[in-house]
Amino acid sequence: MRTGGTDIFTFYMGTKVIHGLHSVQQTGIEFKGFKGTKALIVTDKGVRNAGLVEAVTESLKGNGIGYAVFDEVEEDPGAATVAKGVALALSESCDGIVVIGGGSPICAARAIAVVVANGGKIRDYVGLNKAAKPPIPLIAIPTTAGSGAEVSQFILLKDEELHSKMVAGSPLYFPRVAILDPLLLKGLPFHQFVASGVDALGHAIESYLTTMTTPITDALSLQAVGMLYQNLRPAATSDDMDAKEACLIASSMANIACGNSRLGLVHAMSNPVEGMFKVPHGISVGILLPHVMEFNLPASHSRFVALARAMEETDAGRSAEELAFRTIVALKRLLVNLEFPKKYSEPGLDRNAIPQMAVLAMGGQFSLHDSGKQYSAETPVPSANIRKATMGNVMRLYEKALEGWE
Amino acid sequence: MRTGGTDIFTFYMGTKVIHGLHSVQQTGIEFKGFKGTKALIVTDKGVRNAGLVEAVTESLKGNGIGYAVFDEVEEDPGAATVAKGVALALSESCDGIVVIGGGSPICAARAIAVVVANGGKIRDYVGLNKAAKPPIPLIAIPTTAGSGAEVSQFILLKDEELHSKMVAGSPLYFPRVAILDPLLLKGLPFHQFVASGVDALGHAIESYLTTMTTPITDALSLQAVGMLYQNLRPAATSDDMDAKEACLIASSMANIACGNSRLGLVHAMSNPVEGMFKVPHGISVGILLPHVMEFNLPASHSRFVALARAMEETDAGRSAEELAFRTIVALKRLLVNLEFPKKYSEPGLDRNAIPQMAVLAMGGQFSLHDSGKQYSAETPVPSANIRKATMGNVMRLYEKALEGWE
Repeated sequence: MRTGGTDIFTFYMGTKVIHGLHSVQQTGIEFKGFKGTKALIVTDKGVRNAGLVEAVTESLKGNGIGYAVFDEVEEDPGAATVAKGVALALSESCDGIVVIGGGSPICAARAIAVVVANGGKIRDYVGLNKAAKPPIPLIAIPTTAGSGAEVSQFILLKDEELHSKMVAGSPLYFPRVAILDPLLLKGLPFHQFVASGVDALGHAIESYLTTMTTPITDALSLQAVGMLYQNLRPAATSDDMDAKEACLIASSMANIACGNSRLGLVHAMSNPVEGMFKVPHGISVGILLPHVMEFNLPASHSRFVALARAMEETDAGRSAEELAFRTIVALKRLLVNLEFPKKYSEPGLDRNAIPQMAVLAMGGQFSLHDSGKQYSAETPVPSANIRKATMGNVMRLYEKALEGWE
Repeated sequence: MRTGGTDIFTFYMGTKVIHGLHSVQQTGIEFKGFKGTKALIVTDKGVRNAGLVEAVTESLKGNGIGYAVFDEVEEDPGAATVAKGVALALSESCDGIVVIGGGSPICAARAIAVVVANGGKIRDYVGLNKAAKPPIPLIAIPTTAGSGAEVSQFILLKDEELHSKMVAGSPLYFPRVAILDPLLLKGLPFHQFVASGVDALGHAIESYLTTMTTPITDALSLQAVGMLYQNLRPAATSDDMDAKEACLIASSMANIACGNSRLGLVHAMSNPVEGMFKVPHGISVGILLPHVMEFNLPASHSRFVALARAMEETDAGRSAEELAFRTIVALKRLLVNLEFPKKYSEPGLDRNAIPQMAVLAMGGQFSLHDSGKQYSAETPVPSANIRKATMGNVMRLYEKALEGWE
């Protein structure tokens, strides 16, 4: 229980989670529950064109709530998009937000909610606990089973200046309500389902392999790993609504876990890849995951045994060491089934950039860089990753991610 | 996933949980966090005489926070105790509450917090969502690993008039903070540790056997069952602080689960036993548990298999049916090890009272009676219990609880 440097742990998750088929119809009543009168609906063009916003507007209208729509969130949004949304929310006098979409709109919407309530611009709130007032109330409705942003206290946005992420975190930033309706995932194309689902799997696995795990986060992580392992394949390839709902719930559970136990090397290393080379988050995470897991294996056979069991590997006369290793076999089998890329491809990702990426990775999960600092290969990575790592380890892992696995 | 009559489920738990050795020292800083200036410390004479209140007062003083102490909470408190506490909080101008004790002080304190903020008396708030305003902020510090009242939205008090429970519930009633410090359990006598620990085990098991379970509650329930099964014996019989902390965390997890998935027949049937015959809650729950589990077994072998595995039963060539049954064997083995009573004893509990108890049990988990109603042996029990039950089933289960098991 005590793998970290502290003996005191905190668990908190302030979002009310509603799930089930047609649960999106609860949107209006929930919005009314916090005395909202007009919602800013935040989304992107893809979600809007897919006709998914109608279920939200129907439910709002049915409860006598007005709305304005902001559908200009792009993939990996930054400060400019947030500012546009804030301007619309203020000019339309919106007193709450309903966001429907993937991790990008959900993070943008939560940033809008912070700025509408507190003034200024989102860059003023980068870091931890910078907002004095709670954001305006927000309902998050994911259309991918992936980011977990609907139950997160962390807002991740593109940092155009540093080619990395900017992160704002506070217990105030939990959405008030998350609504998980599998019907909204019905039209999601296979490759998008996979990229987002592997993002969720990355949260589930990494949250179980940190120095800040607790029995509460362990329960959520392992259950999420098992549910994703069982359900990602049918959910991505069929209209099995139970499988899609399981992926949505597991994605939320994984994020609830990692919100409290933090994440490890995969996420620290993925940030610069995404920022510098525009590799989508889920893809980048899934490429790094097998390599980082091989690196982490010696740090805890017992945790890898539990992961292997969650991924349906049986004891079958195996030693703990053999069973622990089966985690990586099971993960690779799943990735192959999901037609997932096995490596970063050049020129998309430039091998010569590895030293620079490694420096950015030293900013850790939250991209907290210290640009004045000098690093050697022996410099330890500031991370909650279960296995202690150095700058040299990180560079070697990037090399492996370019070489790929068989 | 869909065993109940609805397809839409909600998960919410609004309490920040802090755990670890010496975590009680966080009390002052947390109280300050919600801008509190003077705390009403709610406790009972036993806790105060054991010297456990000092850690709280030290931490408050260290943060410049004043306090008044209300130590008059008795076992199974009712409206009169709540009224006394409210009077003291008002006369001392307390703007927050710190409660340290078992389930009785924690429920009394939470009731005091509701009435201080909303006026009137606690009976005005019996039922669901009756308070307009949030209670004054409250920190709950359990000294038993049992009730889970520190992470509950339900306040349970003695109903002197109906010889039963009165229940007030609202998402507003979650304590703001729960602090789980195993050092506070160090002096707890064996039999008290067992009675409270079996209460927690009852929450963990029953919350897994309802029609309202979700993957989130399942993860919490099963982890709690496993932790309690492994740790109750060392925690109750030694100074193993890791075991005590595991029991505390598991107790909270079990209550987080049952707060969302509800409870079953054990709790519906236990309420009248406690109200009419003063059998302590944990004892009453533990006596009913094996009988109700035998009754529930046919409703879901797969859930009993999962419970058996959580209680360290191995597959070992067993059929699912055999393994499912091992749950009951494992539970009885644990109860024997804990020197737990195997039956209600007469004259403590009067066999002739069974019909009356069965009528009261029809009020369900929340003792929501309909005194004008007539019941036959075929009347269904309104309960989230996984196996449908009738009034006749309940009477037979009471008989079995008087006969005991070997």
